[in-house]
Amino acid sequence: MNISITKTTNPKQKPDQNDLGFGQYFTDHMFIMDYTEGKGWHDPRIVPYAPLELDPSCMVLHYGQAIFEGLKAYKTSKGEILLFRPEKNMERVNSSNDRLVIPRIDVDFGVKAIKELVKVDVDWIPDAPGTSLYIRPFIIATDPYLGVRPSNTYKFIIILSPVGAYYKEGINPVKIYVESNYVRAVKGGLGYAKTVANYASSLKAQVEAKHSGYTQVLWLDGIEKKYIEEVGTMNVFFKIDGEIITPSLEGSILPGITRMSTIELLKKSGIPVTERRISIEELYAAHAAGKLDEAFGTGTAAVISPIGEFNWNENSITVNEGKIGPVASKVYETITGIQSGDMEDAFGWTQKVL
Amino acid sequence: MNISITKTTNPKQKPDQNDLGFGQYFTDHMFIMDYTEGKGWHDPRIVPYAPLELDPSCMVLHYGQAIFEGLKAYKTSKGEILLFRPEKNMERVNSSNDRLVIPRIDVDFGVKAIKELVKVDVDWIPDAPGTSLYIRPFIIATDPYLGVRPSNTYKFIIILSPVGAYYKEGINPVKIYVESNYVRAVKGGLGYAKTVANYASSLKAQVEAKHSGYTQVLWLDGIEKKYIEEVGTMNVFFKIDGEIITPSLEGSILPGITRMSTIELLKKSGIPVTERRISIEELYAAHAAGKLDEAFGTGTAAVISPIGEFNWNENSITVNEGKIGPVASKVYETITGIQSGDMEDAFGWTQKVL
Repeated sequence: MNISITKTTNPKQKPDQNDLGFGQYFTDHMFIMDYTEGKGWHDPRIVPYAPLELDPSCMVLHYGQAIFEGLKAYKTSKGEILLFRPEKNMERVNSSNDRLVIPRIDVDFGVKAIKELVKVDVDWIPDAPGTSLYIRPFIIATDPYLGVRPSNTYKFIIILSPVGAYYKEGINPVKIYVESNYVRAVKGGLGYAKTVANYASSLKAQVEAKHSGYTQVLWLDGIEKKYIEEVGTMNVFFKIDGEIITPSLEGSILPGITRMSTIELLKKSGIPVTERRISIEELYAAHAAGKLDEAFGTGTAAVISPIGEFNWNENSITVNEGKIGPVASKVYETITGIQSGDMEDAFGWTQKVL
Repeated sequence: MNISITKTTNPKQKPDQNDLGFGQYFTDHMFIMDYTEGKGWHDPRIVPYAPLELDPSCMVLHYGQAIFEGLKAYKTSKGEILLFRPEKNMERVNSSNDRLVIPRIDVDFGVKAIKELVKVDVDWIPDAPGTSLYIRPFIIATDPYLGVRPSNTYKFIIILSPVGAYYKEGINPVKIYVESNYVRAVKGGLGYAKTVANYASSLKAQVEAKHSGYTQVLWLDGIEKKYIEEVGTMNVFFKIDGEIITPSLEGSILPGITRMSTIELLKKSGIPVTERRISIEELYAAHAAGKLDEAFGTGTAAVISPIGEFNWNENSITVNEGKIGPVASKVYETITGIQSGDMEDAFGWTQKVL
């Protein structure tokens, strides 16, 4: 399919590179493609960024049939534009689509659409250290119908947002509240899909944790409230007695692309990573025995977010004296180095847009 | 607050009363009210039904921060317009809002908004037997922002849809597939809220059950896959050895208004109802002992939906020879009688619009 391009005649003023924040400014264009039952995905187009006209009965607003992705484009010091493993995002789109009964999208075409849009808005990619262009592909169900069933029409949309450096003032480990009351997702549910429901279910716990002075929550499994699942919107890793451990993917955890990259990177460096169930009791016991060396989250926004403190049922423990540890540092430096083009990409993870 | 009214200058043609279906036609007007942090809910207005203009980054499309309700307006044989317990819907709006971190709405004002809108579109209320005007209040998060946090702006919208008789050809008991794989909701999650996530999580199981010839699924609890929760989009009741039993509300089940009315009605008739946990094993054991007399779902759309068959792990059982039973019949006739104005409303459940 050919992607038609209609350029804006009214370009917006670009925001200050030093005050971008996250996800609050959007570029001049967006990509849209429609799906109609019987016709498939059709009419891929890049058009000026503008409000969507949605019928008030539009299914996404009532039944949450929608999925999304998040990735970034980086401008290297040589002026090249790189994407980080975009095919993995498009593969996850289809995994999410299958769970939400949304029709699949060709992975290569999805990557092509991302690249074409980034090219059109290339002037929006910031180049201050740590900044990037956040890319948000998403799909929404659009039937104007209130019966509960999968929609027969969808829109696949990509929008772009220049975002600031996550760690403007250096990497500061975060304080995490271990959530024993609310549940994000459970086996048999939607946890492994990148879908709106999992974020809706996280809001209340997040607000309560923030009120108590914590950055994010650590989710436990919904069945026994025992096994560690993920941190806020990130996957989580621990170094215990020299071993790197991350919760295994058992249906309720998002299979993060930074998680996958962290595992591959550590394995290639000769550092084994164990994917298995790990309970919160085990974490606290390891700390008590002086064996909890590091804890960190992985995700697209921060890449690596070291954890300096956990609070579980009002028992607080401090990890690595509240400082970032050597494993988290190494992973952070390597992945951001590859993304920014400053380090050689021995994994073939990046794709050049320009 | 005063509700401003702007009438359409271009009224739509009304659909054929004999071919309304459910939720596919919408009236000429809708109600909208905005929320802005610091300003509260403001600008309530009735305007011509029209597409919503939503920024592509609008939070509801990405993080599912949204809730909804469903109720009906009925035209009586005397030409009166009745609502059925609308204050219960507005109370549930606030319960859902609390879970989804959405600001509350004054219950009386919400009921007033529903009534005003129904009055404006009163000519759209069908009067053929069994037809009604379906009312869909809903709230969506509207911040144009991709960070994961509660929105600072919302829209409360009410739309109306004339709907056909649910049982055009008499009440036929449905076939239900007992779902052992997928989970709708779990304790600590969103199950008790009327929010988009619970419907998104139901779609795949529903599609698979339909493919196998079943009308809906029966959800089991997400922890042990043992206790009965609800049927598709309805609550569920059983008559076992003369006792009426319905699953108790323990956080993962929607507190249905038809469920509540059924319990109150039966109690007033001297038929006790037990709200307790009931396992699927107990249901099958009761059937094996010849003691499962009736099973039926309760919900706004059908009011009562008798269940004629269950399939659990490929073991099928037939309830009451696949026919509607006396308890389901009595509840159906009483509630629909009160709704249609044909029976005296001894409970004070109805509110007159006109």
